[in-house]
Amino acid sequence: MTNLQKEDFSKWYLQTIQKADLMDYSPVRGCIIFKADGWELWEHIQEDFNKYLKTQDIRNVYFPMLIPKHFLEKEEEHVEGFAPELPWLTKVGDEPLEEPYALRPTSETLIGDAFSNWINSYRDLPYEINQWANVFRWEKKTMPFLRTSEFLWQEGHTAHESEESARERTMAILEAYATLIEDTLAIPVYRGQKTPSERFAGAVDTYSVEAMMRDGKAVQAGTSHYLGQNFAEAFDIKFLNRNNEHEHVYTTSWGISTRLIGSLIMVHGDEQGLVLPPKVAPTQVILVPVGPWQKNPEILDRLKELKASLAQKDLRVRIDTTDNTPGFKFNEWELKGAALRVEFGPRDLENNQAVIKMRDLNDKESVSLDGIEDYIVEQLDVMQKRLFDSAVKRYEANEHTDIDTLDELKAHIEKSKAAGEVPGFVLIGWDGTEETEAKIKEETGFTTRNIPFNPPVEKTVDIVSGKPAKHTVWIARAY
Amino acid sequence: MTNLQKEDFSKWYLQTIQKADLMDYSPVRGCIIFKADGWELWEHIQEDFNKYLKTQDIRNVYFPMLIPKHFLEKEEEHVEGFAPELPWLTKVGDEPLEEPYALRPTSETLIGDAFSNWINSYRDLPYEINQWANVFRWEKKTMPFLRTSEFLWQEGHTAHESEESARERTMAILEAYATLIEDTLAIPVYRGQKTPSERFAGAVDTYSVEAMMRDGKAVQAGTSHYLGQNFAEAFDIKFLNRNNEHEHVYTTSWGISTRLIGSLIMVHGDEQGLVLPPKVAPTQVILVPVGPWQKNPEILDRLKELKASLAQKDLRVRIDTTDNTPGFKFNEWELKGAALRVEFGPRDLENNQAVIKMRDLNDKESVSLDGIEDYIVEQLDVMQKRLFDSAVKRYEANEHTDIDTLDELKAHIEKSKAAGEVPGFVLIGWDGTEETEAKIKEETGFTTRNIPFNPPVEKTVDIVSGKPAKHTVWIARAY
Repeated sequence: MTNLQKEDFSKWYLQTIQKADLMDYSPVRGCIIFKADGWELWEHIQEDFNKYLKTQDIRNVYFPMLIPKHFLEKEEEHVEGFAPELPWLTKVGDEPLEEPYALRPTSETLIGDAFSNWINSYRDLPYEINQWANVFRWEKKTMPFLRTSEFLWQEGHTAHESEESARERTMAILEAYATLIEDTLAIPVYRGQKTPSERFAGAVDTYSVEAMMRDGKAVQAGTSHYLGQNFAEAFDIKFLNRNNEHEHVYTTSWGISTRLIGSLIMVHGDEQGLVLPPKVAPTQVILVPVGPWQKNPEILDRLKELKASLAQKDLRVRIDTTDNTPGFKFNEWELKGAALRVEFGPRDLENNQAVIKMRDLNDKESVSLDGIEDYIVEQLDVMQKRLFDSAVKRYEANEHTDIDTLDELKAHIEKSKAAGEVPGFVLIGWDGTEETEAKIKEETGFTTRNIPFNPPVEKTVDIVSGKPAKHTVWIARAY
Repeated sequence: MTNLQKEDFSKWYLQTIQKADLMDYSPVRGCIIFKADGWELWEHIQEDFNKYLKTQDIRNVYFPMLIPKHFLEKEEEHVEGFAPELPWLTKVGDEPLEEPYALRPTSETLIGDAFSNWINSYRDLPYEINQWANVFRWEKKTMPFLRTSEFLWQEGHTAHESEESARERTMAILEAYATLIEDTLAIPVYRGQKTPSERFAGAVDTYSVEAMMRDGKAVQAGTSHYLGQNFAEAFDIKFLNRNNEHEHVYTTSWGISTRLIGSLIMVHGDEQGLVLPPKVAPTQVILVPVGPWQKNPEILDRLKELKASLAQKDLRVRIDTTDNTPGFKFNEWELKGAALRVEFGPRDLENNQAVIKMRDLNDKESVSLDGIEDYIVEQLDVMQKRLFDSAVKRYEANEHTDIDTLDELKAHIEKSKAAGEVPGFVLIGWDGTEETEAKIKEETGFTTRNIPFNPPVEKTVDIVSGKPAKHTVWIARAY
């Protein structure tokens, strides 16, 4: 048991994800290997979001990974936003290409071109598709899962006959993200609008859900963009509207990525390792035989029966039959974030009971074997809610709404640091200028996260200029 | 109703996959867009193979897409095999990279490097993983789904403590591929070993399952490679064996790809369009209201009930409520390969019946609405088997085992062409030399497909040299 999480959160994170066997470093700059448990977390996120897409009749497709250079140049803001991070394919074998291809940072341009071929009339609208894909942004600073040169994501793209319809989709997706992240990942999020300087390159409006890590820093957990007619104009996506006139469509795009895996670790993890919400934990139940179990074959037989009956209930269960000591096994499975542990030895067999330990609680409990399956299902459900509730409490403890000047902000940061606490999220008044945002960032490292739809307090004065605030904004340090 | 499939099979294929909305061309050389139905076929293949992997405890992972140049160069045969087809990432933004990265054609090298870190002792073995990924091979001739510059696949990689264990895995996977392709895709396959000239670059032995398209040409539908210690030596993957000695592991790799989608179309499709095995058809059941159904709301209500009760049985069902005529709808859904069509109008309502048309049969049938759900489930099952059986019959009609000389082969090809028939698969004797293979290819365009495990006939004389045959081999023209 260490105190590393408090002392050096980044170090704790990097050690934990490797020790827990979620990932490994690769020889490719800023790219990681997703090991089986790390990848499975992503699979569960995919399953969950695919279910939502199905309810919306939004179908999955796949576009080529490469984007011709002249495509990216069609929407000016878009190419400017991504230019320094774009990796380029310039030759094949020994032959240089006539036109280089970019490894996609996102697919609005290629999809815009396709939409211009596929969409003719309002009857074709809304045209709504999604793809699961790898994307590339060659950023200077990388951090496993949270920011990697190659990452995996989902990108949805829709075209609509009216601004209203497109804006509805933009907001519906934001709420779908919030639901997935809160209900499935047990991570509370702040819903709101990005400021213009943090907007997606080429968007009219960008909305985000933001999550607070255990160290008080923010992760942008999902974004939904209303693109207006910008890409429709750049790619000539026109449709015959209900008045029999040709008009540009209104588009949206939206994404969540493998950075959600990083958020999972950073929101729920503790000194012992991963704590994973039962809904996505690769191992929901770990069964550990204890005592002289090898001499008493009935122990393992009963655990195998239990495994089978839990698997029947669609639970992900493993039995640890290695030669390691129980203590070693307990630590290992705590590290890997198995949600619930069942210990079972000769004395338990005699008493027709098992010992249950929830990953996020300290106490163990003895439970009768009769009906233990239902009890386990119930406890996993309770744990899922408990993780969310305790994250909410932590969020609340780290939200600060009484800071009105830059000096107060600096003092708050200093004080937090000295007390070994996290500076967290700060709600400020903002006059709507980029200068103010730049000044905050320069002097404190805090950046605007989003303009919440329902701020807990309305702030009236800009934190830097002292001018009347146009918006109330969450600011924080961010990953 | 045309006769295009017989007259110009390639043209039929290209028209059909576009008209049926499976794909579209993209502005990226040799890369296609997978539209929703095309992509969904791949999703069903993924679901199916993932189920198999789970039974084997082989878990999914994800490796970076980029491969450092010096990695590829470590295994000599491997780099030679892929060199001319490798696309290279050479710069980011405006900055040239110190070492170029290849877009992966396959991942043995990166995974070999990882294995060398992860594997220490025989206790770690077998180490078995799989990944679903996009890969790149910049081939000169491309064909949608069958051969594209970027394609999607599954690549499994395993390491073992003995040749025996690795060879077992190699063969088990080949059989798993055969099962998936035969049972789920209803495509019979020829199991066998590749000749050395058709072997995977760096492998000791390559095995394949080969499928016969409707035009008699072959598609290599899946391959499984025994890699021996070649990659283990190149990447120094050593383990402590049971005798406490350091030894190189024995590895395997194996893959199936989105070319299976092309095979599906080319094996089952007909003049009316796609014919898809029910197990993978995106639309298993299409419900079409007929007659003056808009005036009689009960028609649509009953179809909606039927849709709901079929969805309850996990069927993929759609109702076509467009304004198009029934005839138009029938053609459209035949084109798209909906497996079973239900027609339902006022008279059917009166008679408590519906009309059912199976995609692969010409006749329609009137069926009582009572218990129609079970009947539909049963008919889909029957159709799945029927498609497989009729493919088997077609295979048998196009297999030729009585050709012993190159002249006979040429005559056979000429005769088939003149009769409007397909030359199909020819079983020949082979003396084991590359010269013979080269000669056959040069003079007929036929290539060796594989050396079948159980040839219908043993051939004794090489078709070119007239020398004693070492092997009996299937040859065919191939995609």
